[in-house]
Amino acid sequence: MKSVKAFAPATVANVSCGFDILGFAIDAMGDYVEVTLRDKPGLKVISIENDGGKLPWEVEKNTCAVAIQAMLDSYGKQVGMDISLRKGLPLGSGMGSSAASAVAALVAANRLLGEPFEKKDLLPFAIVAEKAACGAGHADNVAPSLLGGFVLIRDYHPLDVIKLPVPDGLYCTLLHPHFQLNTSDSRSVLRDSIPLKHSTIQSGNVAGFIAGLYQQDFGLISRSMRDVIAEPYRAVLIPGFYEVREALKGAGALGMGISGSGPTLFALSEGAEKSKEMARAAEEIYEGIGLGVDVHFSAINTVGAYVLEEKN
Amino acid sequence: MKSVKAFAPATVANVSCGFDILGFAIDAMGDYVEVTLRDKPGLKVISIENDGGKLPWEVEKNTCAVAIQAMLDSYGKQVGMDISLRKGLPLGSGMGSSAASAVAALVAANRLLGEPFEKKDLLPFAIVAEKAACGAGHADNVAPSLLGGFVLIRDYHPLDVIKLPVPDGLYCTLLHPHFQLNTSDSRSVLRDSIPLKHSTIQSGNVAGFIAGLYQQDFGLISRSMRDVIAEPYRAVLIPGFYEVREALKGAGALGMGISGSGPTLFALSEGAEKSKEMARAAEEIYEGIGLGVDVHFSAINTVGAYVLEEKN
Repeated sequence: MKSVKAFAPATVANVSCGFDILGFAIDAMGDYVEVTLRDKPGLKVISIENDGGKLPWEVEKNTCAVAIQAMLDSYGKQVGMDISLRKGLPLGSGMGSSAASAVAALVAANRLLGEPFEKKDLLPFAIVAEKAACGAGHADNVAPSLLGGFVLIRDYHPLDVIKLPVPDGLYCTLLHPHFQLNTSDSRSVLRDSIPLKHSTIQSGNVAGFIAGLYQQDFGLISRSMRDVIAEPYRAVLIPGFYEVREALKGAGALGMGISGSGPTLFALSEGAEKSKEMARAAEEIYEGIGLGVDVHFSAINTVGAYVLEEKN
Repeated sequence: MKSVKAFAPATVANVSCGFDILGFAIDAMGDYVEVTLRDKPGLKVISIENDGGKLPWEVEKNTCAVAIQAMLDSYGKQVGMDISLRKGLPLGSGMGSSAASAVAALVAANRLLGEPFEKKDLLPFAIVAEKAACGAGHADNVAPSLLGGFVLIRDYHPLDVIKLPVPDGLYCTLLHPHFQLNTSDSRSVLRDSIPLKHSTIQSGNVAGFIAGLYQQDFGLISRSMRDVIAEPYRAVLIPGFYEVREALKGAGALGMGISGSGPTLFALSEGAEKSKEMARAAEEIYEGIGLGVDVHFSAINTVGAYVLEEKN
């Protein structure tokens, strides 16, 4: 039977100053989904690899199936598909794991149907899946995973997604410490209301960051990478946060922040050269506090999710 | 004796989504300051025109003198100057009246001294004057009046001012209703703390607005012109606010907001053609509520303050 395999990249949401509105995709890692046509209507998850047995197989809960079902509902015709998921991303890491699965599934299934939807029009279906997976229909992981590059989610009602430019040579280092942090815990420490002054500071920084992307101004990007809304509360949940940041900045990082709701930390740098030194500096800190860490180096992914393979 | 006359333009601060961090300069109106060398050290205000007798002449209070004194203190040499101010801007209108006076004074005095300071380096002196005039050292009027165009004030500590691009054909209509609104009243209605959700909405909109300027995307600029932080509280102080906005949007405005802390309203449009119709629509509303209004049409000023005349 006809089948399509697609890849969707990992993503960094929030990007320090862009709480809940900004994200970008990285080249190094992502999830793989293969979708195969079936004779009988209905979706079926037939394999999940590399998830440690943790992800649900039920089509009402599995993020790939939920996404594809939302697409088929809009398509107006039920088509039978078998779904195979291979995780490249660790679960609960803050690298947009559920988003990458949903997006890869959508890109594969859309191609299988002959691409009735434009790529950007798959986004609402991915948001439905995010809601099923995380309880909240955020778009700051699914949008960059689908579209690539830096993506601004200006508004949700109606959805207004803007692709931003990626400065040449901007490079990302990801530090994934060996412990799990529940998104709900990371969300629960946030305040419902914040000082007006903090809102103004945050607005200034996200505005500066956007201008920095357009002007390819690494100094401005660096100065703008500051989060006064979420980071002060979340940093305490992440061992070594401030020491690691100090060490990374000393090693030449433009800035460091929490990837999504953590515990993965991301750092940006001008060019790849500094990353090795940054990683060494961070590893030393983690060793000191007795915590293992995986380090990933990556350019910014500018194309988003794509089809890897088609079989007829 | 040697003298220099300079002009500094009116400005619109906040620009809806950029509360306290964004402003732009308009071409149509501004203040004029002439500065003349004196034999004896010390500053002296020798004339003020068109202020209705309301502005202070004392050098410790007059915004032109305060600005020049701050510059001379940094220059390290006290130079005698006579200062003549001609107001082109109404006081307390929300069009950056005090800012334009301070900026024109600085640009004239700097030229008189042979330009020991670069233009952008005059900004801290203008902020000192704003503090004397308004009680708070905001930069969202002085920065665009000095530099022209759209200006982002990313941070104050240290000062980080970013000049943003002006889309071709972007046009401004200003509506100055005939009543005074004290900046302190307009400030006092604001909340000290706001819902996190509102901060996220505001950030999304200012980010969208900045992207819209870079991409010359009038639709995006229009969608981003929304203020959930200050406008809901200030609009009630401005008679007819929502009716005027409705009418302006109906006449083709990209958006309308409060200029600074009001009561002047500003509207942006794509091209000058729609402005006449927008003005007519607004005037009808104001007539209905029995309030006089002055309408000003203007392109965006992209050069900021400048020297008009030099005499030796």
